[in-house]
Amino acid sequence: MEALSRIKQALVKAVGECEGKDSPPKLVEAIGHAVFGGGARIRPRLTLAVAAACQEDNPALTDAAAASIELLHCASLVHDDLPCFDDAAIRRSKPSVHKAFGEPLAVLAGDALIVLGFQTLTRHAAAHPQRLLPLLNILGQAVGAPSGIVAGQAWECEQRVALSVYQRAKTGALFAGATMAGAAAAGADASPWGMLGQKIGEAYQVADDIHDAATDPDVMGKPAGRDIALDRPSAARELGLSNAVARFKLLMSQAVESIPDCPGADALRAHMLAEAKKFLPEELSRRAA
Amino acid sequence: MEALSRIKQALVKAVGECEGKDSPPKLVEAIGHAVFGGGARIRPRLTLAVAAACQEDNPALTDAAAASIELLHCASLVHDDLPCFDDAAIRRSKPSVHKAFGEPLAVLAGDALIVLGFQTLTRHAAAHPQRLLPLLNILGQAVGAPSGIVAGQAWECEQRVALSVYQRAKTGALFAGATMAGAAAAGADASPWGMLGQKIGEAYQVADDIHDAATDPDVMGKPAGRDIALDRPSAARELGLSNAVARFKLLMSQAVESIPDCPGADALRAHMLAEAKKFLPEELSRRAA
Repeated sequence: MEALSRIKQALVKAVGECEGKDSPPKLVEAIGHAVFGGGARIRPRLTLAVAAACQEDNPALTDAAAASIELLHCASLVHDDLPCFDDAAIRRSKPSVHKAFGEPLAVLAGDALIVLGFQTLTRHAAAHPQRLLPLLNILGQAVGAPSGIVAGQAWECEQRVALSVYQRAKTGALFAGATMAGAAAAGADASPWGMLGQKIGEAYQVADDIHDAATDPDVMGKPAGRDIALDRPSAARELGLSNAVARFKLLMSQAVESIPDCPGADALRAHMLAEAKKFLPEELSRRAA
Repeated sequence: MEALSRIKQALVKAVGECEGKDSPPKLVEAIGHAVFGGGARIRPRLTLAVAAACQEDNPALTDAAAASIELLHCASLVHDDLPCFDDAAIRRSKPSVHKAFGEPLAVLAGDALIVLGFQTLTRHAAAHPQRLLPLLNILGQAVGAPSGIVAGQAWECEQRVALSVYQRAKTGALFAGATMAGAAAAGADASPWGMLGQKIGEAYQVADDIHDAATDPDVMGKPAGRDIALDRPSAARELGLSNAVARFKLLMSQAVESIPDCPGADALRAHMLAEAKKFLPEELSRRAA
């Protein structure tokens, strides 16, 4: 099955577990709104690509790991969009969760999605219980304190932060979780796979900064210029646009070089180069440079 | 070691895991503020009491389970206190997290505490990996959708809700998680222990409604009358004060009767009767009746 179909199916199954005869209907609706209808699924596609490169033997577990990563990503988007952070009205070209359902349900949908991320892994680990512990550790490290995406977002509340520390936590951590989870779900040692995700995450963040500084809001599906308006650390602002493009290219080549020896390394390298073009289309790259 | 000391030590250890050389200092401080300095630790004491009744053989795992339950409880308090919910300035006789650190850090501290709850279990299950899966399932069920505390809170966003469904999710679910986690940490079958927690949770909620309707804010450490001011379902309002006291007594006796056969059943029954007196002191019980 094609990657996006596998991911969608796994997410539908996971979100379906939130429904029961006594579940509050608006919460269930808000969770569905946060997860479906948009989203490039970059992180879970990465999980699937790495698992395939490691010759996955349990696709159901890979799918669960990929879904967990995406659910935690969706949770972070819902909370980042709240009025006390970005106050974003639009996400993935439709109203953000708090705009559509109000702030209380946005807080709760985010909370429920964090829990669901952990539950989704747990529910599918029965066939390979020995893989559950590393997968849970990867997930916790990717999202929690001291260095996961929650910590990354919390750096925005500090007076000073090194750009690299901020981006490593805010974006790199979950990308590293995505690649490591793919390896762990396939029964491989996860740690050599962290660097790939970390570099892709950094590259993605730099590309996002370039988009944010350079593009039209209609292209992005969310208001541009927010990072600058919110005085957030931005590679495009700190390095200048053309240096940021050079940094993006360096990070992507470091990502590709970091791929550990594995049966599907060539296919994975090709996948990464195709992703790079999606992150930063040639036209934008030329315009920014 | 005495129960409160064990719980404190486990929480200190768990929260310490949020600190690293690259951790954002205010987030770490907000997490500590949310967890320490106040709190009766009712739920984790219940976990310890049930584990003891089941002849616990791995106190470190019991402590981790108890800490996980308390961390998730703290997360729910931090988020429930936010301006979009209760807008509570005071919690456990000191400023609520959003009052002390601002809304963004309160949202993030709650998120980090949810993640930490799952991590804390995972970090201490190495000696008994076969107990990890039931413990994680118990935790997820207690806090997530469709029927955990997040769902309970979400019922406050609905026009209509049955009081029993609301209280079972909002309060009963985590108490049931606390008793079941105690049994599971001791290697016992958890499911027969759910009813005990559910009944204690319902009783606790009724006692809280009675307090809220009847007592002085100085006694409670948080503003009284909030449930009524916020138009939340309340047993004291729905049943009247004297019927609410009768309902509390019935629930506590049902709780005690539900205790499954186990080596420490007598000691556990005595523990429950002592807890009942803390939930609803005789003086208040007489005044309300």
